[in-house]
Amino acid sequence: MNAYKQLLEIHERIHNFQHLGAIAYWDQEAMMPQGSNDARSKALAQLDVLVHEESTSSKINDLIEESQTLSLSKQEQTSLFEIKRNYDLKTVLPSSLVKAKSLAGSKCGHAWREQRKNNDWKGFLPNLEEVIKLSKEEASIRASHTGLSAYDSLLNMYEPGMKSESLDDIFSEVKTWLPSLIQDVVEKQKSESFINPIGPFPTHIQKELGLKVMKHLGFDFNTGRIDISSHPFCGGVPEDVRITTRYDENDFVQSLMGTVHETGHARYEQNLPLEYVSLPVGNARSMGIHESQSLFFEMQMGRGRAFLESIHKYIQDAFGEGETFSIENLCKIYNHVKPDFIRVDADEVTYAAHVMLRYEIEKELINGNLAARDIPEVWDEKMLSYLGINTQGNYKNGVMQDVHWTEGLIGYFPSYTLGAMYAAQQFNTVKNQYPNVNENISQGNFSQIFSWLDENIWKNASFYSTDELMKNATGEVLNPKYFKAHLENRYLK
Amino acid sequence: MNAYKQLLEIHERIHNFQHLGAIAYWDQEAMMPQGSNDARSKALAQLDVLVHEESTSSKINDLIEESQTLSLSKQEQTSLFEIKRNYDLKTVLPSSLVKAKSLAGSKCGHAWREQRKNNDWKGFLPNLEEVIKLSKEEASIRASHTGLSAYDSLLNMYEPGMKSESLDDIFSEVKTWLPSLIQDVVEKQKSESFINPIGPFPTHIQKELGLKVMKHLGFDFNTGRIDISSHPFCGGVPEDVRITTRYDENDFVQSLMGTVHETGHARYEQNLPLEYVSLPVGNARSMGIHESQSLFFEMQMGRGRAFLESIHKYIQDAFGEGETFSIENLCKIYNHVKPDFIRVDADEVTYAAHVMLRYEIEKELINGNLAARDIPEVWDEKMLSYLGINTQGNYKNGVMQDVHWTEGLIGYFPSYTLGAMYAAQQFNTVKNQYPNVNENISQGNFSQIFSWLDENIWKNASFYSTDELMKNATGEVLNPKYFKAHLENRYLK
Repeated sequence: MNAYKQLLEIHERIHNFQHLGAIAYWDQEAMMPQGSNDARSKALAQLDVLVHEESTSSKINDLIEESQTLSLSKQEQTSLFEIKRNYDLKTVLPSSLVKAKSLAGSKCGHAWREQRKNNDWKGFLPNLEEVIKLSKEEASIRASHTGLSAYDSLLNMYEPGMKSESLDDIFSEVKTWLPSLIQDVVEKQKSESFINPIGPFPTHIQKELGLKVMKHLGFDFNTGRIDISSHPFCGGVPEDVRITTRYDENDFVQSLMGTVHETGHARYEQNLPLEYVSLPVGNARSMGIHESQSLFFEMQMGRGRAFLESIHKYIQDAFGEGETFSIENLCKIYNHVKPDFIRVDADEVTYAAHVMLRYEIEKELINGNLAARDIPEVWDEKMLSYLGINTQGNYKNGVMQDVHWTEGLIGYFPSYTLGAMYAAQQFNTVKNQYPNVNENISQGNFSQIFSWLDENIWKNASFYSTDELMKNATGEVLNPKYFKAHLENRYLK
Repeated sequence: MNAYKQLLEIHERIHNFQHLGAIAYWDQEAMMPQGSNDARSKALAQLDVLVHEESTSSKINDLIEESQTLSLSKQEQTSLFEIKRNYDLKTVLPSSLVKAKSLAGSKCGHAWREQRKNNDWKGFLPNLEEVIKLSKEEASIRASHTGLSAYDSLLNMYEPGMKSESLDDIFSEVKTWLPSLIQDVVEKQKSESFINPIGPFPTHIQKELGLKVMKHLGFDFNTGRIDISSHPFCGGVPEDVRITTRYDENDFVQSLMGTVHETGHARYEQNLPLEYVSLPVGNARSMGIHESQSLFFEMQMGRGRAFLESIHKYIQDAFGEGETFSIENLCKIYNHVKPDFIRVDADEVTYAAHVMLRYEIEKELINGNLAARDIPEVWDEKMLSYLGINTQGNYKNGVMQDVHWTEGLIGYFPSYTLGAMYAAQQFNTVKNQYPNVNENISQGNFSQIFSWLDENIWKNASFYSTDELMKNATGEVLNPKYFKAHLENRYLK
């Protein structure tokens, strides 16, 4: 068997183990009784070690080198490139640093859960400093292998090909219009009052509504399901996609749009090409592109009037026909903008400001221009400038609100807003190509959209770079003007 | 680290993998969407290969030998004995035979699903012959290693220590009274009519009832759960026990007692000693002892008047207070005896006859005194003699009804009736020790029973042989007279 075929076998084996791990993890979040947590965590950790050993074995390196001498098809060459990229990402760090990072991240994350409640920045800081110190070490090692800057070498793990040079351009442009746009929207919405839906909205009715909407959006229930977990996610494997949501009987609004969001992730996963499912080239292109699919579903379509019209009947069947559930009121509810402390609760307009702030801070942390102890000062200043919000002394709803940095996940935040921008650009192309698309959406006919996404995003997996993928799909690489136009169009017209 | 400690580490690693496999298998049966089956089966097969490789590695053999020279505590010695027994069972067959058996079993089992529907004995026979031929090869190899007879070497895998000499004694004694006892019971019950409950019994109400009964029976929901699957089972791992049931809206009777049955299995698993959970010595003692716990719950207690009284309120709350749900009627329903074709649907009286017949046939098949093509003749004769039922030409409800032989599972059937006998003997001891036990049961107070089972069965795992376990618990080794007394007492008085 030639070296490339051997690589396929190794990856299939690893994928099989990852399949079991993904289902056991989903079970831990969605099904498992509380008292089984220790045993499950140990079992999953054991599998992680196995998968790490197998996917970093030097045999893979030998086989990659041997494969490079073979005459491979173009697709095989791309696949080999992604195998190598993946292998290098995993093997470049010395295992002592991997271990130190994991320990420091667990320690910081574990203590954070209590410290956040107590607004205890002083207690949190030394742990965070250790995590950031180790992330800087990681970045410096990765940088020496990739030739990228320290921060870019982290960014590269989630958004291959993206550079902070581009991000700086994007965000400095966004900064020129976003804060004032937020103010304008808030001002405009002051005169547009809406009726807040009052529960109870029984869980089983919300669940039924969510299932209808997922079906509406083409979720394949033959290879996936939805359940409840405290933090919604899209898990499992492409052959068996598990999404989760949570229900609040006082508020159906969040859960419903959360389900639309996860359905976007799920459809990407469910439509990745099955014949490459165990290979890196068969994975989703990047975190930003993945987020673009959930935000395409949730923001571009989901909160738009046409989509709300298409599910209006379902909502009325579930909760009644009063004015609260009129299209006008639903549109207002789903497009309400309110600058606030917490990123995960933010609307799509202010969300970008939350991300921009985090990007600017984490980049300077990694590049050595900012010390962890000085984050709150910068945080306060930027929150005031971008969102007009005073966070002084409010650490728990400020710098201590996210889990990412506590666990050493640095370089990830930009993906959220890149996703929003990719989504806006993609939807703009769809609208140009199909001028009647909103009419079709409002009638529950999504065939134009689904076939466009399948053709241009889903089935391409990682066969193209993000730039190529966007260029093939929309005629140009990422251009944030479509995001701006989308926000202006939706919120100021 | 000494050799014995190394063995512990290896077994912990294997247990962790088995944990993930058990949950992924449970998920396949209870949660997984249909279309994901191929991917799941592949992933589980991959894990099976891994676990097989790890648990049969020659390193374990070396460590066992080295451990035998160490000065070990008594418990460690027992544990080492079980590690060796387990290892030998797994490694004695050449891998060519393991593979041939697996292929022949899959082929036979797969074709059987259709052939059974078509009553196609002729089509089934050649596949069965191949399976039996290979089982005979297996038995002969195992026999040469254990010094047991061919059949006993198979029996030994499920009931270590049990011999066909004892089984022959037991069943030839049972044969002297069971057929006439069945006739007497049928005759007696002719004059005891009962009202058949008429549905619908909505699934969610049955589910709620089942949960109440499980709680009543001490199932630990902090480390286990119940769900639905088409074939009820008790799975997962002791740290996270997953039982399943199925609901028929026309019949709550079966599902309710099925839940009691699986709860018996589950409580054994949940009360095995956690500090030995990854070691062979920490496992349930045998298939028969496992079945004794489910039958203790279902047959000794569950179908008894005292237990039905204890859950009577729950049943009435679920379905009403009519005469159908009176204690008298429930007792009649749950103790109705009816000789019939199908083992899995049989009552506890006729069940023993079904097992006796299968034992007698499979023993002669393996020992070479009966050819597969002659099974139907013997089957017909024994069904007529034990149960008064004519099975001539009715293969699908006769010899072709069970999955066991199609997959080469031979030597397992006796465990069912051994379980019934162990259970009767255990309950007899409990009644002698606590003369008021039925009064307590009827009041929903099971503390005497649960502490007796915990002390005498559950926490002992595999630290004693079955004979020792029964002798310590009941004062004597297996004695089928208690089973006979139980049947006479329940059905003829």
